[in-house]
Amino acid sequence: MSKQLPKRSEDYSLWYNELVKRAGLAENSAVRGCMVIKPYGYAIWEKMQRTLDDMFKRTGHQNAYFPLFVPKNLFEAEEQNAEGFAKECAVVTHYRLKLDPERPGKLIVDPEAKLEEELVVRPTSEAIIWSTYKGWIQSYRDLPLLINQWANVVRWEMRTRLFLRTAEFLWQEGHTAHATAQEAVAETRQMLDVYAEFAEEWLALPVVKGVKTENERFAGAIETYCIEGMMQDGKALQAGTSHFLGQNFAKAFDVLFTNKEGQQEHVWGTSWGVSTRLMGALVMAHSDDEGLVLPPKLAPIQVVIVPIYKTGQLDELLERIRPIQMGLIERGISVKIDDRDTERPGFKFAEWELKGVPVRIAVGARDLDNGTLEVARRDTKEKMNLPLADIVNSVALLLNDIQQNIYNRARSFREEHTTRVDSYDEFKQVLNDKGGFVVAHWDGTSETEKRIKEETKATIRCIALNEPDEDGVCMVTGRPSKRRVYFAQAY
Amino acid sequence: MSKQLPKRSEDYSLWYNELVKRAGLAENSAVRGCMVIKPYGYAIWEKMQRTLDDMFKRTGHQNAYFPLFVPKNLFEAEEQNAEGFAKECAVVTHYRLKLDPERPGKLIVDPEAKLEEELVVRPTSEAIIWSTYKGWIQSYRDLPLLINQWANVVRWEMRTRLFLRTAEFLWQEGHTAHATAQEAVAETRQMLDVYAEFAEEWLALPVVKGVKTENERFAGAIETYCIEGMMQDGKALQAGTSHFLGQNFAKAFDVLFTNKEGQQEHVWGTSWGVSTRLMGALVMAHSDDEGLVLPPKLAPIQVVIVPIYKTGQLDELLERIRPIQMGLIERGISVKIDDRDTERPGFKFAEWELKGVPVRIAVGARDLDNGTLEVARRDTKEKMNLPLADIVNSVALLLNDIQQNIYNRARSFREEHTTRVDSYDEFKQVLNDKGGFVVAHWDGTSETEKRIKEETKATIRCIALNEPDEDGVCMVTGRPSKRRVYFAQAY
Repeated sequence: MSKQLPKRSEDYSLWYNELVKRAGLAENSAVRGCMVIKPYGYAIWEKMQRTLDDMFKRTGHQNAYFPLFVPKNLFEAEEQNAEGFAKECAVVTHYRLKLDPERPGKLIVDPEAKLEEELVVRPTSEAIIWSTYKGWIQSYRDLPLLINQWANVVRWEMRTRLFLRTAEFLWQEGHTAHATAQEAVAETRQMLDVYAEFAEEWLALPVVKGVKTENERFAGAIETYCIEGMMQDGKALQAGTSHFLGQNFAKAFDVLFTNKEGQQEHVWGTSWGVSTRLMGALVMAHSDDEGLVLPPKLAPIQVVIVPIYKTGQLDELLERIRPIQMGLIERGISVKIDDRDTERPGFKFAEWELKGVPVRIAVGARDLDNGTLEVARRDTKEKMNLPLADIVNSVALLLNDIQQNIYNRARSFREEHTTRVDSYDEFKQVLNDKGGFVVAHWDGTSETEKRIKEETKATIRCIALNEPDEDGVCMVTGRPSKRRVYFAQAY
Repeated sequence: MSKQLPKRSEDYSLWYNELVKRAGLAENSAVRGCMVIKPYGYAIWEKMQRTLDDMFKRTGHQNAYFPLFVPKNLFEAEEQNAEGFAKECAVVTHYRLKLDPERPGKLIVDPEAKLEEELVVRPTSEAIIWSTYKGWIQSYRDLPLLINQWANVVRWEMRTRLFLRTAEFLWQEGHTAHATAQEAVAETRQMLDVYAEFAEEWLALPVVKGVKTENERFAGAIETYCIEGMMQDGKALQAGTSHFLGQNFAKAFDVLFTNKEGQQEHVWGTSWGVSTRLMGALVMAHSDDEGLVLPPKLAPIQVVIVPIYKTGQLDELLERIRPIQMGLIERGISVKIDDRDTERPGFKFAEWELKGVPVRIAVGARDLDNGTLEVARRDTKEKMNLPLADIVNSVALLLNDIQQNIYNRARSFREEHTTRVDSYDEFKQVLNDKGGFVVAHWDGTSETEKRIKEETKATIRCIALNEPDEDGVCMVTGRPSKRRVYFAQAY
């Protein structure tokens, strides 16, 4: 712990990478672009999974599991989707290795075990799932079909970054089928709301809900909805997407149903997903130069108790501390007592700061005698003395307060970093000076969007759902615009 | 539901396959050898996962996630392991597809996107995990390292069967590292006990705990422990394995630690896993010619309520049924009211029998007036009239009784199908007449074991841990033997 983290202000990118590694969230693996998610990071991901899974089930979805591999001929079926992902997919061509006759103990691909049809490692599962839905859907009575899958996917990215962009990542992908366009759109929007609620209530990350432009749309979708968060370096991060697929996949895979009038129609589809990328958002939105700042609702350890004692007195002190731990646990709070006799309190404090534990309680025999405990909150680093008699209530309230404070802080930051501009010069100036969201009029064309991206690296993050109509002119071309859109440089 | 299932006595294998499909557990996919786990099947798997995960955590393990791919040069490092799995592994050789210039809309592997080092899709993760552990372990203070992973793995099996043997399957794999051999062996045995407890208490499947012979050992292990269950056709099924790896992987990947005396030593390892194969065991052990028989502890729906009503009276009846449902739910029992107005009770009864719901309650207005409900248990098909006033308690007790009864039934079956023989003729006779476990003396050589396998298709399932020492002679060679071993034909 002695080595200091790089500072955000000096090298944000290095700070992020080092923090992810040193806090024990993840590390790079021996496989290019793939990460190892370490136990502490995985514990956070499990909390995310559990929470989201409950939300999906409450909205009527069931989990299922579909194959990792997509035969090339199925992968091809929906052309836009295939073209969109073909450039970055891992392909299995053989099903056996054999001993290399020339190098003892080494293996080579067995040329006799070549697959007739290559298998694509799923970059997303629409193809394999819709080819299955064909067998599951005959009548309107089979609809809606509301299914989610927790899985790993592979996209062969050239420039990778822990959690934010990795060749393999973990995610959930919902795939639903409906009798009408209206119902499918409602599902798409509902899941966007679920994601937004999760981001705001659990990740403590305020998000802008919106629609992607055609350029940024999911390959194979009619409309892509998204939630966009703002990181501390002024860059946006897409934290979840929900796609209205229209009848694209139903047509590609021939998924028809008999409606109530006895006629055959193509089914309407949606898909929606969030991934381990949320781990990156969590780190980038809240953490500081001392380490992680975890929202209490997702912290694997919410409270750490550090005993302060003289040599030889640890056991006796622990006896007195355990009832405090038990009281907190009974209240549903996760507590760790750091009872290592090999490290000093200062070292422990720094380590739990690095790991982002929301509340730290330092307890010595004298504190217990006096009936007062020193409680430190991670988010503001404030220390306070709280009465032992009411410690469980105080800590429960404090955890709520921390959750709210982290959210408020991120929200203030975003508000300070959301600027409405009317000229392209001002646009560039703002991007250069402080980044963040720049809300401006745009003429609605891909050409203008691409030009802006080339000249400023900013993309249209979304056409925000709650953005009011407003007559204006495109800041670049002067052509008329009915509504401002959200630009930002993004991860 | 009208079509009857094949009968177990006529074609056990067909019965199994049809049942798995019709009950909505799984089906074959468009990818050779890979299955789709359907929502009802996945719901059972989720219950298994949750239970096992809690057991792993209670015994001090943490979850993590390691890459799907293993670079070929890492895969090779532990020779026995590599040789064991090389014959059946999927290999990624390219990372891009491109449009076929000759066939519009079709894709081909891009020859320019060939990987320098091929990637093996993990058939098991020892190689990638031990190559990571090298960076995590320096000192005895880093040990034990107790990690589990929930993941998909791929083994290119030629003959596949839903759940029991599929090219891709879901599993958990524990990988632990220890300072001493003794501690690693204790971990191996502890996890075997966890698996046995899970099998007996949750799957209601009695198991024999034992050690595999060298022939049947995991590639790369010093010793493989296993639990073996007995299916209704008299074949054994290996339901979980726990391996003592010695220092094999530590040596292959150079994982050393400094012990308390300041000396460098290789770490000792274990690995252990259970998979979606358990779903197959669950079906084969308990189900009958009408459908699944699920142990209540793993049933996604424990009680189904079927309203019995005249046309137009459903809503009124449902109003009166809901309090019963709520009472059961408050007791922690999962209940579904089958309120479909489109199907008749008889159809619903058959469907829930097929799906193995442990308890069915048929409720009409008159039953409610009389204060008595007709309750049917799935395991024995017994029907009883139970007082409405005490229905929650009665159902809770009934569910416990069903769990116990299913276990007892499977245990009796296994006892009736466990035969001790002293001659090879008798051995063949028993295998032929009724199958099951045949417990016999064996001379301890691989030759004899292989000969028996060739001649009878029976393998040594295990050297049971609780089998007493007994002087005897090998039934085949007459050579001395100190202990009987368990033979069976197996899945």
